[in-house]
Amino acid sequence: MALSKNKIKYIQSLKDKKHRLEYGVFVAEGTKLVFDLLATCKCQFIAALPEIIAKYPKIIAEEVIIADENELKKATFLKTPPQIIGVFYQPDFDISTTNFDKKLSLVLDGIQDPGNIGTIVRLADWFGMEDVICSPDTVDIYNPKTVQATMGAIARVKVHYTNLTDFLQKHNHLPIYGTFLEGKNIYNESLSENGFIVMGNEGNGIRSETEKAINRKLFIPSFPSERETSESLNVGVATGIICGEFRRRYDFNPSPTANPPH
Amino acid sequence: MALSKNKIKYIQSLKDKKHRLEYGVFVAEGTKLVFDLLATCKCQFIAALPEIIAKYPKIIAEEVIIADENELKKATFLKTPPQIIGVFYQPDFDISTTNFDKKLSLVLDGIQDPGNIGTIVRLADWFGMEDVICSPDTVDIYNPKTVQATMGAIARVKVHYTNLTDFLQKHNHLPIYGTFLEGKNIYNESLSENGFIVMGNEGNGIRSETEKAINRKLFIPSFPSERETSESLNVGVATGIICGEFRRRYDFNPSPTANPPH
Repeated sequence: MALSKNKIKYIQSLKDKKHRLEYGVFVAEGTKLVFDLLATCKCQFIAALPEIIAKYPKIIAEEVIIADENELKKATFLKTPPQIIGVFYQPDFDISTTNFDKKLSLVLDGIQDPGNIGTIVRLADWFGMEDVICSPDTVDIYNPKTVQATMGAIARVKVHYTNLTDFLQKHNHLPIYGTFLEGKNIYNESLSENGFIVMGNEGNGIRSETEKAINRKLFIPSFPSERETSESLNVGVATGIICGEFRRRYDFNPSPTANPPH
Repeated sequence: MALSKNKIKYIQSLKDKKHRLEYGVFVAEGTKLVFDLLATCKCQFIAALPEIIAKYPKIIAEEVIIADENELKKATFLKTPPQIIGVFYQPDFDISTTNFDKKLSLVLDGIQDPGNIGTIVRLADWFGMEDVICSPDTVDIYNPKTVQATMGAIARVKVHYTNLTDFLQKHNHLPIYGTFLEGKNIYNESLSENGFIVMGNEGNGIRSETEKAINRKLFIPSFPSERETSESLNVGVATGIICGEFRRRYDFNPSPTANPPH
């Protein structure tokens, strides 16, 4: 069976958030990403070259379509057509029943750049964070460009969209960290093993409404501290430095000011 | 005087590396970036709205052109036209006379994404690194998209392009760090205050030719270490985590294994 014109049109329509929401699905491309997702996500269909399907006979999907290069070229969002394209159902995580008390999670307040959210979900995966909680206006993780930018991390990290004010208020018994110019030097502060790290929009930072919920304000010092420098770090880089420092405390070299692991 | 059609054509031609090299110039847009550059870089001309020129009467450039919104709209590379566009001469840093013995510098081996090099130069600035040394095939820092992505850091960080094999061989008396899967956990290693941190291409990492020059191999551990995770971090994020860890050792919380500051 070949990849029909209708299926190609359907895949292409999933570039738009409207259609992704309507059908509750998203597109992933390339063997690494598709097979990472097949392990954790329900698959509507995959379309792949015959040699790929022959090589992996146990693909679990509602439909497995043998496609040729020309069909994949018409269906792809990538510059170089992949050997396999998959359409997956958007997972439906129930955030209200998730217990956040004993884990460290990321909160994104209005991140706009698809590359940035992809990078951040990838580093959440790297640092063993199971959940990323996004404000409703944060860029859609299921945008094809973002899905690719996660490099497979989207298969392992749960990305939620919810009203942050309500969510953070419900969890205000936990440490809620955010970076601010007037915050405390992250390297001198005690950092907890659980709670939330809030990262703000690329241009405007954390919204004042969200800021009210933050009970631990930090900053990343520049070096040397008295020098004039760039005004800020890219949000993906800042998230990486912060998550790296939280994780370092518990795995490797707890500083005297850090809370002991429990 | 208005921004002529020829000048608009000239600015637009600088999208191509060939033309940037031919004229030895690059384009920067927006007040923050242009004024950061005016402080450190020789300016061929600026074109700006009359109110901007009235506000900053002391602009030093070979030519100052009063432009209207329509002209700036035709000349810009941005989606939203800026109030000011500047054409600057590419600085001519002499790498052969620079003494690298007492500073920490970044080396980029084939970074391809303009956003990534912009992010990296921005964090070099943040962490007080004066020099970024790039292989000749690393993406051009003077590409208009990259210039904007540096957010002004390009005005303070010296970006060099040179043959890395020769350059690193000349400096092999210094610590030369790189990250590899078989490297040593960065949080357990002694880190020097001087030397080079080499970062590799987004897909292929550090070239084997360059690897030969690396005398200290590191890796950034994931968390928890036994868990299956993303295979790698984005190169900008990895650079941020590494530079942050080097700087933390000397400014804030020297670990017992680190060399003492001198």
